[in-house]
Amino acid sequence: MLPPALDKVATLLSRLPGVGKRSALRWAFHILAEPPAYAEALRTALGELLEHVHFCAQCHHLAETELCGICRDPARDTSLLCVVEGVPDLLALERTGSYRGRYHVLHGSLAPLKGVGPSQLRLDNLESRITQDGVREVIVATSADVEGEATALYLAKRLAATGVSVTRIATGIPMGGELEYLDDHTLSRAIAGRIRLGGP
Amino acid sequence: MLPPALDKVATLLSRLPGVGKRSALRWAFHILAEPPAYAEALRTALGELLEHVHFCAQCHHLAETELCGICRDPARDTSLLCVVEGVPDLLALERTGSYRGRYHVLHGSLAPLKGVGPSQLRLDNLESRITQDGVREVIVATSADVEGEATALYLAKRLAATGVSVTRIATGIPMGGELEYLDDHTLSRAIAGRIRLGGP
Repeated sequence: MLPPALDKVATLLSRLPGVGKRSALRWAFHILAEPPAYAEALRTALGELLEHVHFCAQCHHLAETELCGICRDPARDTSLLCVVEGVPDLLALERTGSYRGRYHVLHGSLAPLKGVGPSQLRLDNLESRITQDGVREVIVATSADVEGEATALYLAKRLAATGVSVTRIATGIPMGGELEYLDDHTLSRAIAGRIRLGGP
Repeated sequence: MLPPALDKVATLLSRLPGVGKRSALRWAFHILAEPPAYAEALRTALGELLEHVHFCAQCHHLAETELCGICRDPARDTSLLCVVEGVPDLLALERTGSYRGRYHVLHGSLAPLKGVGPSQLRLDNLESRITQDGVREVIVATSADVEGEATALYLAKRLAATGVSVTRIATGIPMGGELEYLDDHTLSRAIAGRIRLGGP
């Protein structure tokens, strides 16, 4: 009962992560009800996105040239490599200003049930980067969920042969976190990962 | 810190109803990570939407010609006019198969706080349709929320001069609804709108 062009837009929008068919249809109607300038602007922006934005050939971060700004920055410590699941994670780490090494963006995490295996992640050039750049430590900064943990374990195993030190970012209570309201799992991890403050 | 083209796509997507800046950015990343065919398909579909889909000049329903299929259908009862807020509402009513009159799609509802007044709704030709088509009843089928109710009251007042009968779809307990779990407002309405089953 819907015009095919409307249905097409809704179907494509419903393929975005977390978007249902209902919301997508609502948006297709919204786009139609807006002045045509909106849809035109979206078309232009999508075109520019395809044309101008790529992934860095080395670390797979966003780049408008072959290598991204971080890989081109000579002030970065090339002996440290931080592995993240996605660009937003990289941006979050950059905002802290507390990391001066380089990154490796996987564009996903291992999820066998969703059909995401190691070959779907940007792992091809990881070992060659470690060797060529003389990396001494790989910091695995994947999420603390099942998939992120699985990815971290996989990387530790896979990189064992290279002799590089593989570390995992700490899990524990977040700053401002009240013990009373924390889940058991986080609390167990926080106890297991306790650090010495003093004494023998 | 983000490439301008990526930021542009995210900003445009965040203008869709109910979409936050965070989701929009996530989708912009997703579009970038997908094969380029996806963004190309979306661009094409948006272009076709603009080119082929319009609103009916009479009832403002979707149309691929000047008038929509419902307005062109000679079997429809032209003396009944059902006013709805949007096309999805029209489609929901059509699915019931229990209405054989015509429609008038407002493309919104009165919301003074959001700056939506009568001039933002497709009301220009409502009175002329009533006169020209010899409409005897206008059924106001706007939502039962504050804005839909306000729109219904506004229409009743506005159409008083035309002498047409203005009715409102019933509010009450939905089929399958259990009284115990219904909100007070719906229940009050259901009692106030009770209908006689028998007796004097």
